[in-house]
Amino acid sequence: MSCIIERLAIVGVGLIGGSFARALRQAGAVRHVVGIGRSRANLEHALSQGIVDEISFNATEGVAGAQLVFISIPVCSISAMVGAIAPSLAPGCIVTDGGSVKAEIVRECEKLIPEGCHFVGGHPIAGTENSGASASFATLYQGKRCILTPTERTDREAYETVARLWRVAGANVCSMDPERHDRILAEISHLPHAVAYALVHAVGTADAEGENVLSYSAGGFRDFTRIASSDPVMWRDIALMNRRALLASIDGFSASLAELRRRIDSGDSPGLAEFFTIAKQFRDGIL
Amino acid sequence: MSCIIERLAIVGVGLIGGSFARALRQAGAVRHVVGIGRSRANLEHALSQGIVDEISFNATEGVAGAQLVFISIPVCSISAMVGAIAPSLAPGCIVTDGGSVKAEIVRECEKLIPEGCHFVGGHPIAGTENSGASASFATLYQGKRCILTPTERTDREAYETVARLWRVAGANVCSMDPERHDRILAEISHLPHAVAYALVHAVGTADAEGENVLSYSAGGFRDFTRIASSDPVMWRDIALMNRRALLASIDGFSASLAELRRRIDSGDSPGLAEFFTIAKQFRDGIL
Repeated sequence: MSCIIERLAIVGVGLIGGSFARALRQAGAVRHVVGIGRSRANLEHALSQGIVDEISFNATEGVAGAQLVFISIPVCSISAMVGAIAPSLAPGCIVTDGGSVKAEIVRECEKLIPEGCHFVGGHPIAGTENSGASASFATLYQGKRCILTPTERTDREAYETVARLWRVAGANVCSMDPERHDRILAEISHLPHAVAYALVHAVGTADAEGENVLSYSAGGFRDFTRIASSDPVMWRDIALMNRRALLASIDGFSASLAELRRRIDSGDSPGLAEFFTIAKQFRDGIL
Repeated sequence: MSCIIERLAIVGVGLIGGSFARALRQAGAVRHVVGIGRSRANLEHALSQGIVDEISFNATEGVAGAQLVFISIPVCSISAMVGAIAPSLAPGCIVTDGGSVKAEIVRECEKLIPEGCHFVGGHPIAGTENSGASASFATLYQGKRCILTPTERTDREAYETVARLWRVAGANVCSMDPERHDRILAEISHLPHAVAYALVHAVGTADAEGENVLSYSAGGFRDFTRIASSDPVMWRDIALMNRRALLASIDGFSASLAELRRRIDSGDSPGLAEFFTIAKQFRDGIL
């Protein structure tokens, strides 16, 4: 394919950023990739593996001359990064991100992006347990969904360029407003994480109080609570940045659990069978 | 090995009962196995596969002459089954079960078991997604835990025979009182199922209200909610039979979730990091 981007800057060359670079390079969609970060070991690994052509520990220098900057760093740092690199962006530069929360990031970044440059919010729904450039691979996004969150301020051409890159990387691109993205992600991702953390917290606390419960846990419990092994700092940031939608999701879940509790407490046998059957139907519907 | 049981009756030749029979046969620990059930197709499959030597659709006839009866049917039916077969049990016969709730079953069955026969409550913590004799295999219990729940009324020799059979089947046998079993299982199994069902119920309801949320769910959500695809009737019965312990576990979990919600709502960044870190430590501790 013909080259889409001459000079791509990746801020944060981890699983997400590294895989984006690998996929675009492999497709011939980028000419030169600058990897920007703080960890020398990680960046040198990325360089040695050919994920990037050049590394920089200074974002304002690293983004100079890039047509596209992809920011894949913790959600709490994204808008501050856009503010920091804003003065160094080349005219016409497109800045996009991979953060899993969108409303606050898009709102802030649209304010910070300089006249003549463009911000497009994005979130590839892909990932593994692992992190760092060494965990990245070119096919991470293959067949996965990437949600872009344009607003009325988003430049149409910039949006199309970002969408095209994600398609080249193998993703199915869809578009929605940032608030809807955050409501959906609260339900399908942030709520399950909150619930898993709370569950392990509760069972672990009972355990610590002397029941020695966890040693009896079998595969089912381990599978169910796997996501509670995720990075606490990342999830703290996501919970805070998507606070409003997440609280609404927690409240919806708590209402469901209270209803289930009521049916158990009152010995409502048909009501319980109905509750479990409806849930099973929802679950089986997404298989 | 030398034969332990001349004549074994399995009431309910599904995954649990069929695998128990297979494991004991393979070890040479049983001479003759009678499979008892209601589904002709299932029993004939068990017979054709050599899981059992003989089949019966009539439990009172099928258990006649057996030294040991293993009952592996839904938890709500176990004590009724013991009541039904009680008059037909041979003197000295040991009856044991595989139900995942114990206190109520043990209490009822100890009342129903005739003088000169013995009841030993048991629960192998093993299983797969599949059910029926065709899903059974000899190594299901290999390295898995089997909890036996003797009481002061339990015959010591009968307990030892049941424990020996489970060890022959490959399980690690441990023993505790039925109430403690139910508290532990409520925490590590029944609570996670209730939470998964409530989560899918809540997200599915939001979905039905027009957000079209579930179509965005990725692998994480699918893995996390897998157990909500379990059999609704089985889980209705477990929830009702372990009602008291499960309600206590739900309340402990709800308190954890409320604490997490409070920290999110108040923007308590260090408190959130602490909550997630403690949960992650509990979770990583069971890997």
